[in-house]
Amino acid sequence: MGRVTSRRRVQHVTADEAVARPETLVVEEPLELRVNGTAITVTMRTPGSDFELAQGFLLTEGVIAHRDDVLTVRYCRGAGPDQLNTYNVLDVTLASGVKMPDVDVTRNFYTTSSCGVCGKASLDAVRTISRHCPGDDPSTVAAETLSALPARLREEQKVFASTGGLHAAALFDADGTCLVVREDIGRHNAVDKVIGWALEQHRIPLAATVLLVSGRASFELTQKAVMAGIPVLAAVSAPSSLAVDLASQSGLTLVAFLRGDSMNVYTRPDRILR
Amino acid sequence: MGRVTSRRRVQHVTADEAVARPETLVVEEPLELRVNGTAITVTMRTPGSDFELAQGFLLTEGVIAHRDDVLTVRYCRGAGPDQLNTYNVLDVTLASGVKMPDVDVTRNFYTTSSCGVCGKASLDAVRTISRHCPGDDPSTVAAETLSALPARLREEQKVFASTGGLHAAALFDADGTCLVVREDIGRHNAVDKVIGWALEQHRIPLAATVLLVSGRASFELTQKAVMAGIPVLAAVSAPSSLAVDLASQSGLTLVAFLRGDSMNVYTRPDRILR
Repeated sequence: MGRVTSRRRVQHVTADEAVARPETLVVEEPLELRVNGTAITVTMRTPGSDFELAQGFLLTEGVIAHRDDVLTVRYCRGAGPDQLNTYNVLDVTLASGVKMPDVDVTRNFYTTSSCGVCGKASLDAVRTISRHCPGDDPSTVAAETLSALPARLREEQKVFASTGGLHAAALFDADGTCLVVREDIGRHNAVDKVIGWALEQHRIPLAATVLLVSGRASFELTQKAVMAGIPVLAAVSAPSSLAVDLASQSGLTLVAFLRGDSMNVYTRPDRILR
Repeated sequence: MGRVTSRRRVQHVTADEAVARPETLVVEEPLELRVNGTAITVTMRTPGSDFELAQGFLLTEGVIAHRDDVLTVRYCRGAGPDQLNTYNVLDVTLASGVKMPDVDVTRNFYTTSSCGVCGKASLDAVRTISRHCPGDDPSTVAAETLSALPARLREEQKVFASTGGLHAAALFDADGTCLVVREDIGRHNAVDKVIGWALEQHRIPLAATVLLVSGRASFELTQKAVMAGIPVLAAVSAPSSLAVDLASQSGLTLVAFLRGDSMNVYTRPDRILR
Protein backbone atom coordinates (compact mmCIF):
# COMPACT_ATOMS: atom_id res chain seq x y z
CA MET A 1 0.00 0.00 0.00
CA GLY A 2 3.08 2.23 0.02
CA ARG A 3 2.30 3.83 -3.33
CA VAL A 4 -1.35 4.62 -2.59
CA THR A 5 -0.56 7.63 -0.44
CA SER A 6 2.31 10.08 -0.28
CA ARG A 7 3.41 12.64 2.34
CA ARG A 8 4.04 16.31 1.51
CA ARG A 9 4.65 19.42 3.56
CA VAL A 10 1.85 21.94 3.32
CA GLN A 11 1.15 25.36 4.73
CA HIS A 12 -2.16 25.30 6.58
CA VAL A 13 -3.62 28.83 6.60
CA THR A 14 -6.47 30.07 8.77
CA ALA A 15 -7.63 33.56 9.69
CA ASP A 16 -5.38 33.40 12.74
CA GLU A 17 -2.21 31.66 11.63
CA ALA A 18 -0.21 29.83 8.99
CA VAL A 19 1.54 26.65 10.10
CA ALA A 20 3.64 24.22 8.11
CA ARG A 21 2.67 20.60 8.61
CA PRO A 22 2.94 17.25 6.83
CA GLU A 23 -0.08 15.94 4.99
CA THR A 24 -1.06 12.67 3.36
CA LEU A 25 -2.03 12.87 -0.32
CA VAL A 26 -3.52 10.26 -2.60
CA VAL A 27 -1.05 9.12 -5.26
CA GLU A 28 -1.87 9.67 -8.94
CA GLU A 29 0.27 7.96 -11.59
CA PRO A 30 -0.28 7.08 -15.27
CA LEU A 31 -0.97 3.46 -16.23
CA GLU A 32 -0.28 2.47 -19.83
CA LEU A 33 -2.35 -0.48 -20.96
CA ARG A 34 -1.02 -2.69 -23.74
CA VAL A 35 -2.92 -5.51 -25.39
CA ASN A 36 -0.81 -8.21 -27.05
CA GLY A 37 2.10 -5.76 -26.87
CA THR A 38 0.33 -2.81 -28.50
CA ALA A 39 -0.31 0.32 -26.43
CA ILE A 40 -4.03 0.96 -26.26
CA THR A 41 -4.69 3.68 -23.73
CA VAL A 42 -3.26 5.46 -20.72
CA THR A 43 -5.26 6.35 -17.64
CA MET A 44 -4.30 8.41 -14.60
CA ARG A 45 -4.96 6.14 -11.65
CA THR A 46 -4.06 5.40 -8.05
CA PRO A 47 -1.62 2.47 -8.04
CA GLY A 48 -2.96 -0.83 -6.69
CA SER A 49 -5.26 -3.51 -8.11
CA ASP A 50 -3.83 -2.71 -11.55
CA PHE A 51 -4.52 -6.18 -12.97
CA GLU A 52 -8.16 -5.78 -11.98
CA LEU A 53 -8.23 -2.29 -13.46
CA ALA A 54 -6.88 -3.49 -16.81
CA GLN A 55 -9.25 -6.44 -17.06
CA GLY A 56 -12.25 -4.43 -15.86
CA PHE A 57 -11.52 -1.81 -18.48
CA LEU A 58 -11.23 -4.39 -21.26
CA LEU A 59 -14.47 -6.02 -20.15
CA THR A 60 -16.43 -2.78 -19.97
CA GLU A 61 -15.09 -1.74 -23.38
CA GLY A 62 -16.34 -5.00 -24.86
CA VAL A 63 -12.91 -6.48 -25.70
CA ILE A 64 -13.27 -9.43 -23.34
CA ALA A 65 -16.33 -11.04 -21.77
CA HIS A 66 -14.96 -13.76 -19.49
CA ARG A 67 -11.86 -14.65 -17.50
CA ASP A 68 -10.88 -17.20 -20.14
CA ASP A 69 -10.53 -14.45 -22.74
CA VAL A 70 -7.32 -13.36 -20.98
CA LEU A 71 -4.20 -15.49 -21.19
CA THR A 72 -1.80 -13.42 -19.06
CA VAL A 73 -1.48 -10.00 -17.42
CA ARG A 74 1.98 -8.72 -16.49
CA TYR A 75 3.92 -5.56 -15.75
CA CYS A 76 6.38 -4.72 -18.53
CA ARG A 77 10.01 -4.69 -17.49
CA GLY A 78 12.26 -2.03 -18.84
CA ALA A 79 9.55 0.49 -19.69
CA GLY A 80 11.08 3.12 -17.42
CA PRO A 81 13.87 5.56 -18.28
CA ASP A 82 16.54 3.42 -16.59
CA GLN A 83 15.13 0.13 -17.83
CA LEU A 84 13.53 -0.27 -14.44
CA ASN A 85 10.06 -1.64 -14.00
CA THR A 86 7.95 1.40 -13.15
CA TYR A 87 4.88 -0.77 -12.50
CA ASN A 88 3.04 1.72 -14.68
CA VAL A 89 2.91 -0.33 -17.90
CA LEU A 90 0.75 -3.45 -18.12
CA ASP A 91 0.51 -5.91 -20.98
CA VAL A 92 -2.55 -8.11 -21.36
CA THR A 93 -2.25 -11.12 -23.66
CA LEU A 94 -5.60 -12.18 -25.04
CA ALA A 95 -6.57 -15.81 -25.51
CA SER A 96 -6.42 -17.20 -29.02
CA GLY A 97 -9.44 -16.09 -31.04
CA VAL A 98 -10.21 -12.97 -28.97
CA LYS A 99 -10.25 -9.99 -31.31
CA MET A 100 -7.79 -7.13 -30.74
CA PRO A 101 -9.54 -3.85 -30.00
CA ASP A 102 -9.77 -1.27 -32.73
CA VAL A 103 -7.32 1.49 -31.85
CA ASP A 104 -8.51 4.19 -34.20
CA VAL A 105 -8.45 7.31 -32.10
CA THR A 106 -11.99 8.48 -32.58
CA ARG A 107 -14.01 5.32 -32.61
CA ASN A 108 -11.62 3.11 -30.82
CA PHE A 109 -11.62 2.26 -27.35
CA TYR A 110 -13.72 5.10 -26.33
CA THR A 111 -16.23 3.39 -28.54
CA THR A 112 -18.98 2.98 -26.11
CA SER A 113 -18.78 6.34 -24.47
CA SER A 114 -17.98 8.28 -27.56
CA CYS A 115 -18.53 6.83 -30.97
CA GLY A 116 -21.83 8.58 -31.34
CA VAL A 117 -22.42 12.09 -32.49
CA CYS A 118 -25.55 12.18 -30.38
CA GLY A 119 -26.78 10.54 -27.22
CA LYS A 120 -28.82 7.97 -29.13
CA ALA A 121 -25.78 6.78 -31.05
CA SER A 122 -23.94 6.34 -27.74
CA LEU A 123 -26.80 4.19 -26.45
CA ASP A 124 -26.83 2.15 -29.65
CA ALA A 125 -23.10 1.51 -29.32
CA VAL A 126 -23.54 -0.04 -25.89
CA ARG A 127 -26.42 -2.19 -27.16
CA THR A 128 -24.24 -3.44 -30.00
CA ILE A 129 -21.31 -4.60 -27.88
CA SER A 130 -23.11 -5.61 -24.68
CA ARG A 131 -22.99 -9.32 -23.93
CA HIS A 132 -24.27 -9.39 -20.37
CA CYS A 133 -27.30 -7.09 -20.43
CA PRO A 134 -28.97 -6.92 -17.00
CA GLY A 135 -32.52 -6.59 -18.36
CA ASP A 136 -33.61 -10.16 -17.63
CA ASP A 137 -32.08 -10.41 -14.16
CA PRO A 138 -35.04 -11.27 -11.85
CA SER A 139 -33.27 -10.30 -8.61
CA THR A 140 -34.68 -7.77 -6.16
CA VAL A 141 -33.28 -5.77 -3.25
CA ALA A 142 -35.02 -4.24 -0.23
CA ALA A 143 -35.03 -0.43 -0.05
CA GLU A 144 -33.91 -0.78 3.56
CA THR A 145 -30.88 -2.83 2.46
CA LEU A 146 -29.93 -0.20 -0.12
CA SER A 147 -30.19 2.61 2.42
CA ALA A 148 -27.64 0.89 4.63
CA LEU A 149 -24.98 0.60 1.89
CA PRO A 150 -23.42 4.10 1.85
CA ALA A 151 -22.49 3.81 5.54
CA ARG A 152 -20.96 0.39 4.83
CA LEU A 153 -18.93 1.89 2.00
CA ARG A 154 -17.63 4.74 4.15
CA GLU A 155 -16.47 2.25 6.78
CA GLU A 156 -14.40 0.52 4.11
CA GLN A 157 -12.95 3.69 2.61
CA LYS A 158 -9.69 3.61 4.50
CA VAL A 159 -7.72 5.89 2.18
CA PHE A 160 -10.43 8.47 1.75
CA ALA A 161 -10.43 8.92 5.49
CA SER A 162 -6.81 10.02 5.40
CA THR A 163 -6.66 11.96 2.13
CA GLY A 164 -10.19 13.00 1.13
CA GLY A 165 -9.02 12.40 -2.42
CA LEU A 166 -10.51 9.14 -3.59
CA HIS A 167 -13.62 7.89 -5.29
CA ALA A 168 -14.94 4.52 -4.23
CA ALA A 169 -16.98 1.74 -5.78
CA ALA A 170 -18.30 -1.34 -4.03
CA LEU A 171 -20.17 -4.44 -4.98
CA PHE A 172 -22.82 -5.94 -2.69
CA ASP A 173 -25.01 -8.95 -3.08
CA ALA A 174 -28.78 -8.57 -2.89
CA ASP A 175 -28.92 -9.04 0.88
CA GLY A 176 -26.34 -6.27 1.43
CA THR A 177 -23.22 -8.39 1.98
CA CYS A 178 -20.17 -6.49 0.77
CA LEU A 179 -18.21 -8.43 -1.85
CA VAL A 180 -15.46 -5.95 -2.72
CA VAL A 181 -14.52 -2.27 -2.34
CA ARG A 182 -12.02 -0.41 -4.51
CA GLU A 183 -10.82 3.20 -4.39
CA ASP A 184 -9.14 5.32 -7.03
CA ILE A 185 -8.55 8.95 -7.92
CA GLY A 186 -10.67 8.28 -11.03
CA ARG A 187 -14.22 7.13 -10.45
CA HIS A 188 -14.23 5.06 -13.67
CA ASN A 189 -11.07 3.31 -12.45
CA ALA A 190 -12.64 2.40 -9.11
CA VAL A 191 -15.51 0.74 -11.00
CA ASP A 192 -13.14 -1.02 -13.42
CA LYS A 193 -11.20 -2.42 -10.46
CA VAL A 194 -14.40 -3.80 -8.91
CA ILE A 195 -15.48 -5.39 -12.19
CA GLY A 196 -11.97 -6.72 -12.85
CA TRP A 197 -12.06 -8.34 -9.42
CA ALA A 198 -15.34 -10.02 -10.35
CA LEU A 199 -13.85 -11.24 -13.63
CA GLU A 200 -10.93 -12.81 -11.79
CA GLN A 201 -13.43 -14.50 -9.47
CA HIS A 202 -15.33 -15.91 -12.49
CA ARG A 203 -18.41 -13.94 -11.38
CA ILE A 204 -19.25 -12.29 -14.71
CA PRO A 205 -22.09 -11.65 -15.47
CA LEU A 206 -22.71 -10.13 -12.04
CA ALA A 207 -26.29 -11.31 -11.50
CA ALA A 208 -28.12 -10.33 -8.31
CA THR A 209 -25.64 -7.64 -7.23
CA VAL A 210 -25.68 -3.91 -6.45
CA LEU A 211 -22.86 -1.62 -7.60
CA LEU A 212 -22.56 1.41 -5.31
CA VAL A 213 -20.54 4.45 -6.38
CA SER A 214 -19.51 7.27 -4.05
CA GLY A 215 -20.30 10.08 -6.49
CA ARG A 216 -22.54 10.69 -9.47
CA ALA A 217 -23.93 8.29 -12.07
CA SER A 218 -22.61 9.30 -15.49
CA PHE A 219 -23.16 7.56 -18.82
CA GLU A 220 -19.72 5.99 -18.55
CA LEU A 221 -20.30 4.40 -15.14
CA THR A 222 -23.75 3.20 -16.20
CA GLN A 223 -22.25 1.64 -19.30
CA LYS A 224 -19.73 -0.24 -17.14
CA ALA A 225 -22.53 -1.65 -14.95
CA VAL A 226 -24.47 -2.75 -18.03
CA MET A 227 -21.43 -4.39 -19.64
CA ALA A 228 -20.81 -6.44 -16.48
CA GLY A 229 -24.44 -7.55 -16.24
CA ILE A 230 -25.03 -5.77 -12.92
CA PRO A 231 -28.79 -5.34 -12.32
CA VAL A 232 -28.71 -2.41 -9.83
CA LEU A 233 -26.50 0.70 -9.92
CA ALA A 234 -26.79 2.98 -6.88
CA ALA A 235 -25.14 6.40 -6.64
CA VAL A 236 -24.83 8.72 -3.67
CA SER A 237 -25.19 11.79 -5.93
CA ALA A 238 -27.03 12.80 -9.10
CA PRO A 239 -27.40 10.90 -12.38
CA SER A 240 -27.13 12.43 -15.86
CA SER A 241 -29.82 12.36 -18.55
CA LEU A 242 -27.85 9.89 -20.67
CA ALA A 243 -27.20 7.61 -17.70
CA VAL A 244 -30.96 7.37 -17.12
CA ASP A 245 -31.58 6.76 -20.84
CA LEU A 246 -29.00 3.97 -20.95
CA ALA A 247 -30.38 2.37 -17.78
CA SER A 248 -33.88 2.52 -19.24
CA GLN A 249 -32.79 0.91 -22.51
CA SER A 250 -30.77 -1.80 -20.77
CA GLY A 251 -33.21 -2.81 -18.04
CA LEU A 252 -30.79 -1.64 -15.33
CA THR A 253 -32.26 -0.34 -12.07
CA LEU A 254 -30.70 3.09 -11.53
CA VAL A 255 -30.90 4.54 -8.03
CA ALA A 256 -29.35 7.92 -7.16
CA PHE A 257 -29.36 10.45 -4.33
CA LEU A 258 -29.11 7.45 -2.00
CA ARG A 259 -28.95 9.32 1.30
CA GLY A 260 -30.35 8.54 4.75
CA ASP A 261 -33.55 6.56 4.22
CA SER A 262 -34.46 8.20 0.92
CA MET A 263 -33.50 7.56 -2.70
CA ASN A 264 -34.65 8.26 -6.23
CA VAL A 265 -35.35 5.27 -8.46
CA TYR A 266 -35.09 6.30 -12.11
CA THR A 267 -35.60 3.00 -13.92
CA ARG A 268 -36.90 -0.52 -13.23
CA PRO A 269 -38.34 0.30 -9.78
CA ASP A 270 -39.83 -3.21 -9.69
CA ARG A 271 -36.47 -4.47 -8.39
CA ILE A 272 -36.68 -2.29 -5.26
CA LEU A 273 -38.87 -3.87 -2.54
CA ARG A 274 -40.49 -1.83 0.21
CA MET B 1 -30.32 26.76 -22.10
CA GLY B 2 -32.94 24.19 -23.09
CA ARG B 3 -30.41 21.41 -23.58
CA VAL B 4 -28.60 21.91 -20.28
CA THR B 5 -31.28 20.22 -18.22
CA SER B 6 -33.90 17.59 -18.94
CA ARG B 7 -37.01 16.45 -17.05
CA ARG B 8 -37.68 12.79 -16.17
CA ARG B 9 -40.19 11.01 -13.99
CA VAL B 10 -38.66 9.37 -10.97
CA GLN B 11 -39.89 7.31 -8.05
CA HIS B 12 -38.87 8.97 -4.80
CA VAL B 13 -38.65 6.31 -2.10
CA THR B 14 -38.44 6.92 1.65
CA ALA B 15 -39.04 4.67 4.64
CA ASP B 16 -42.68 5.80 4.64
CA GLU B 17 -43.72 6.04 1.02
CA ALA B 18 -42.89 5.87 -2.67
CA VAL B 19 -44.16 8.72 -4.83
CA ALA B 20 -43.71 9.36 -8.53
CA ARG B 21 -42.59 12.90 -9.33
CA PRO B 22 -40.82 14.82 -12.09
CA GLU B 23 -37.16 15.68 -11.63
CA THR B 24 -34.66 17.89 -13.40
CA LEU B 25 -31.49 16.15 -14.61
CA VAL B 26 -28.32 17.58 -16.07
CA VAL B 27 -27.93 16.73 -19.75
CA GLU B 28 -24.94 14.66 -20.89
CA GLU B 29 -24.21 14.36 -24.62
CA PRO B 30 -21.10 13.46 -26.64
CA LEU B 31 -19.17 16.20 -28.43
CA GLU B 32 -16.95 15.14 -31.31
CA LEU B 33 -14.11 17.56 -31.91
CA ARG B 34 -12.62 17.80 -35.39
CA VAL B 35 -9.55 19.83 -36.32
CA ASN B 36 -9.26 20.83 -39.98
CA GLY B 37 -11.92 18.23 -40.72
CA THR B 38 -10.22 15.31 -38.95
CA ALA B 39 -11.90 13.81 -35.88
CA ILE B 40 -9.60 14.15 -32.91
CA THR B 41 -11.48 13.21 -29.79
CA VAL B 42 -14.93 12.83 -28.29
CA THR B 43 -15.87 14.00 -24.83
CA MET B 44 -19.09 13.52 -22.86
CA ARG B 45 -20.19 17.01 -21.91
CA THR B 46 -23.12 19.19 -20.96
CA PRO B 47 -24.18 21.16 -24.06
CA GLY B 48 -23.47 24.88 -23.97
CA SER B 49 -20.31 26.98 -24.46
CA ASP B 50 -19.11 24.33 -26.92
CA PHE B 51 -16.89 26.75 -28.87
CA GLU B 52 -15.16 27.67 -25.64
CA LEU B 53 -14.84 24.00 -24.70
CA ALA B 54 -13.20 23.12 -28.00
CA GLN B 55 -10.75 26.01 -27.92
CA GLY B 56 -9.95 25.55 -24.23
CA PHE B 57 -9.24 21.88 -24.88
CA LEU B 58 -6.94 22.68 -27.82
CA LEU B 59 -5.10 25.29 -25.76
CA THR B 60 -4.60 23.05 -22.75
CA GLU B 61 -3.37 20.22 -25.01
CA GLY B 62 -0.79 22.55 -26.53
CA VAL B 63 -2.25 22.65 -30.05
CA ILE B 64 -3.00 26.39 -29.95
CA ALA B 65 -1.63 29.17 -27.77
CA HIS B 66 -3.57 32.29 -28.83
CA ARG B 67 -6.88 33.33 -30.32
CA ASP B 68 -5.18 34.00 -33.64
CA ASP B 69 -4.21 30.34 -33.96
CA VAL B 70 -7.87 29.56 -34.70
CA LEU B 71 -9.42 30.59 -37.99
CA THR B 72 -13.00 29.34 -37.52
CA VAL B 73 -15.09 27.17 -35.22
CA ARG B 74 -18.39 25.78 -36.50
CA TYR B 75 -20.92 23.02 -35.90
CA CYS B 76 -20.89 20.44 -38.70
CA ARG B 77 -24.11 20.14 -40.59
CA GLY B 78 -25.34 16.73 -41.59
CA ALA B 79 -23.42 14.76 -38.99
CA GLY B 80 -26.59 13.28 -37.53
CA PRO B 81 -28.47 10.19 -38.74
CA ASP B 82 -31.01 12.25 -40.71
CA GLN B 83 -28.46 14.75 -42.01
CA LEU B 84 -29.62 17.09 -39.27
CA ASN B 85 -27.22 19.23 -37.31
CA THR B 86 -27.00 17.53 -33.92
CA TYR B 87 -24.88 20.34 -32.52
CA ASN B 88 -22.63 17.57 -31.21
CA VAL B 89 -19.89 17.78 -33.84
CA LEU B 90 -17.55 20.79 -33.95
CA ASP B 91 -14.88 21.54 -36.52
CA VAL B 92 -12.03 23.89 -35.66
CA THR B 93 -10.00 25.26 -38.56
CA LEU B 94 -6.49 26.22 -37.50
CA ALA B 95 -4.73 29.28 -38.84
CA SER B 96 -2.10 28.74 -41.48
CA GLY B 97 1.14 27.49 -39.94
CA VAL B 98 -0.44 26.00 -36.81
CA LYS B 99 0.55 22.35 -36.60
CA MET B 100 -2.15 19.67 -36.62
CA PRO B 101 -2.20 17.62 -33.42
CA ASP B 102 -0.72 14.15 -33.50
CA VAL B 103 -3.61 11.73 -33.39
CA ASP B 104 -1.79 8.56 -32.52
CA VAL B 105 -3.95 6.91 -29.92
CA THR B 106 -1.43 6.47 -27.16
CA ARG B 107 0.63 9.58 -27.32
CA ASN B 108 -1.82 11.75 -29.07
CA PHE B 109 -3.99 14.18 -27.59
CA TYR B 110 -3.84 12.73 -24.20
CA THR B 111 -0.19 13.62 -24.51
CA THR B 112 0.10 15.75 -21.51
CA SER B 113 -1.95 13.67 -19.16
CA SER B 114 -0.78 10.34 -20.37
CA CYS B 115 2.29 10.05 -22.52
CA GLY B 116 4.48 9.11 -19.62
CA VAL B 117 4.96 5.71 -18.16
CA CYS B 118 5.65 7.32 -14.81
CA GLY B 119 4.67 10.50 -13.06
CA LYS B 120 7.95 12.19 -13.92
CA ALA B 121 7.42 11.63 -17.63
CA SER B 122 3.97 13.20 -17.33
CA LEU B 123 5.51 16.26 -15.70
CA ASP B 124 8.18 16.45 -18.39
CA ALA B 125 5.53 16.35 -21.10
CA VAL B 126 3.81 19.43 -19.69
CA ARG B 127 7.13 21.24 -19.43
CA THR B 128 7.85 20.45 -23.06
CA ILE B 129 4.62 21.85 -24.49
CA SER B 130 3.88 24.63 -22.02
CA ARG B 131 4.10 28.11 -23.50
CA HIS B 132 2.53 30.17 -20.72
CA CYS B 133 4.14 28.86 -17.58
CA PRO B 134 2.89 30.73 -14.47
CA GLY B 135 6.21 30.58 -12.60
CA ASP B 136 7.22 34.18 -13.18
CA ASP B 137 3.82 35.75 -12.48
CA PRO B 138 4.45 38.23 -9.62
CA SER B 139 0.80 38.60 -8.63
CA THR B 140 -0.48 37.94 -5.11
CA VAL B 141 -3.90 37.34 -3.57
CA ALA B 142 -5.12 37.89 -0.01
CA ALA B 143 -6.07 34.74 1.95
CA GLU B 144 -9.26 36.53 2.93
CA THR B 145 -10.13 37.09 -0.73
CA LEU B 146 -9.57 33.40 -1.51
CA SER B 147 -11.77 32.30 1.39
CA ALA B 148 -14.69 34.28 -0.03
CA LEU B 149 -14.54 32.63 -3.47
CA PRO B 150 -16.36 29.30 -2.87
CA ALA B 151 -19.48 31.13 -1.69
CA ARG B 152 -19.31 33.35 -4.77
CA LEU B 153 -19.07 30.26 -6.98
CA ARG B 154 -22.08 28.61 -5.35
CA GLU B 155 -24.16 31.73 -5.94
CA GLU B 156 -23.36 31.45 -9.63
CA GLN B 157 -24.02 27.72 -9.92
CA LYS B 158 -27.53 28.00 -11.20
CA VAL B 159 -27.80 24.54 -12.72
CA PHE B 160 -26.20 22.71 -9.84
CA ALA B 161 -28.88 24.15 -7.60
CA SER B 162 -31.56 22.39 -9.63
CA THR B 163 -29.81 19.14 -10.54
CA GLY B 164 -26.93 18.51 -8.14
CA GLY B 165 -25.13 17.06 -11.14
CA LEU B 166 -22.58 19.60 -12.31
CA HIS B 167 -18.99 20.49 -11.66
CA ALA B 168 -18.08 24.16 -11.80
CA ALA B 169 -15.00 26.20 -12.57
CA ALA B 170 -14.63 29.96 -12.19
CA LEU B 171 -12.01 32.54 -12.92
CA PHE B 172 -11.46 35.47 -10.58
CA ASP B 173 -9.02 38.33 -10.72
CA ALA B 174 -6.65 38.91 -7.84
CA ASP B 175 -9.06 41.16 -5.94
CA GLY B 176 -11.81 38.53 -6.11
CA THR B 177 -13.87 39.91 -8.99
CA CYS B 178 -15.55 37.04 -10.82
CA LEU B 179 -14.67 36.99 -14.52
CA VAL B 180 -16.50 33.87 -15.69
CA VAL B 181 -18.21 30.73 -14.36
CA ARG B 182 -18.84 27.57 -16.36
CA GLU B 183 -20.53 24.30 -15.38
CA ASP B 184 -20.30 20.86 -16.93
CA ILE B 185 -20.89 17.23 -16.07
CA GLY B 186 -17.13 16.75 -16.60
CA ARG B 187 -14.84 18.76 -14.40
CA HIS B 188 -12.15 18.98 -17.10
CA ASN B 189 -14.80 20.35 -19.47
CA ALA B 190 -15.83 23.10 -17.03
CA VAL B 191 -12.18 24.21 -16.86
CA ASP B 192 -11.76 24.02 -20.65
CA LYS B 193 -14.85 26.23 -21.08
CA VAL B 194 -13.42 28.84 -18.71
CA ILE B 195 -10.05 28.82 -20.49
CA GLY B 196 -11.72 28.87 -23.91
CA TRP B 197 -13.69 31.93 -22.79
CA ALA B 198 -10.42 33.62 -21.83
CA LEU B 199 -8.92 32.74 -25.20
CA GLU B 200 -11.86 34.34 -27.00
CA GLN B 201 -11.36 37.44 -24.83
CA HIS B 202 -7.66 37.59 -25.83
CA ARG B 203 -6.74 37.09 -22.17
CA ILE B 204 -4.22 34.26 -22.57
CA PRO B 205 -1.86 34.00 -20.69
CA LEU B 206 -4.14 34.49 -17.71
CA ALA B 207 -1.81 36.52 -15.50
CA ALA B 208 -2.97 37.66 -12.06
CA THR B 209 -6.00 35.33 -11.88
CA VAL B 210 -7.32 32.56 -9.64
CA LEU B 211 -8.96 29.45 -11.10
CA LEU B 212 -11.41 27.93 -8.61
CA VAL B 213 -12.72 24.38 -9.10
CA SER B 214 -15.66 22.90 -7.21
CA GLY B 215 -14.03 19.52 -6.63
CA ARG B 216 -10.57 18.04 -6.38
CA ALA B 217 -7.30 19.11 -7.98
CA SER B 218 -6.05 16.31 -10.23
CA PHE B 219 -2.99 16.31 -12.47
CA GLU B 220 -5.20 17.02 -15.48
CA LEU B 221 -6.81 20.16 -14.01
CA THR B 222 -3.44 21.40 -12.77
CA GLN B 223 -2.01 20.91 -16.23
CA LYS B 224 -4.82 23.00 -17.71
CA ALA B 225 -4.10 25.85 -15.29
CA VAL B 226 -0.39 25.72 -16.13
CA MET B 227 -1.02 25.67 -19.89
CA ALA B 228 -3.19 28.80 -19.61
CA GLY B 229 -0.61 30.66 -17.51
CA ILE B 230 -2.89 30.87 -14.46
CA PRO B 231 -0.80 31.61 -11.32
CA VAL B 232 -3.21 30.33 -8.63
CA LEU B 233 -5.35 27.15 -8.71
CA ALA B 234 -7.75 26.75 -5.77
CA ALA B 235 -9.80 23.61 -5.14
CA VAL B 236 -12.56 23.01 -2.65
CA SER B 237 -11.43 19.40 -2.13
CA ALA B 238 -8.19 17.40 -2.06
CA PRO B 239 -5.24 17.50 -4.49
CA SER B 240 -3.35 14.47 -5.80
CA SER B 241 0.37 13.81 -5.42
CA LEU B 242 1.02 14.46 -9.10
CA ALA B 243 -0.99 17.69 -9.06
CA VAL B 244 1.25 18.98 -6.27
CA ASP B 245 4.38 17.84 -8.12
CA LEU B 246 3.30 19.60 -11.32
CA ALA B 247 2.40 22.78 -9.44
CA SER B 248 5.77 22.71 -7.74
CA GLN B 249 7.65 22.27 -11.00
CA SER B 250 5.64 24.98 -12.78
CA GLY B 251 5.65 27.67 -10.13
CA LEU B 252 1.86 27.46 -9.78
CA THR B 253 0.33 28.24 -6.39
CA LEU B 254 -1.87 25.25 -5.52
CA VAL B 255 -4.46 25.77 -2.79
CA ALA B 256 -6.84 22.99 -1.75
CA PHE B 257 -9.37 22.20 0.98
CA LEU B 258 -10.49 25.83 0.61
CA ARG B 259 -13.29 25.79 3.18
CA GLY B 260 -14.54 28.43 5.60
CA ASP B 261 -11.55 30.56 6.59
CA SER B 262 -9.01 27.76 6.24
CA MET B 263 -7.02 26.36 3.33
CA ASN B 264 -3.94 24.29 2.57
CA VAL B 265 -1.27 25.90 0.40
CA TYR B 266 0.86 23.21 -1.24
CA THR B 267 3.19 25.24 -3.46
CA ARG B 268 4.38 28.84 -3.87
CA PRO B 269 2.79 30.13 -0.64
CA ASP B 270 4.51 33.48 -1.27
CA ARG B 271 1.56 34.46 -3.48
CA ILE B 272 -0.92 34.15 -0.61
CA LEU B 273 -0.96 37.29 1.59
CA ARG B 274 -2.16 37.25 5.19
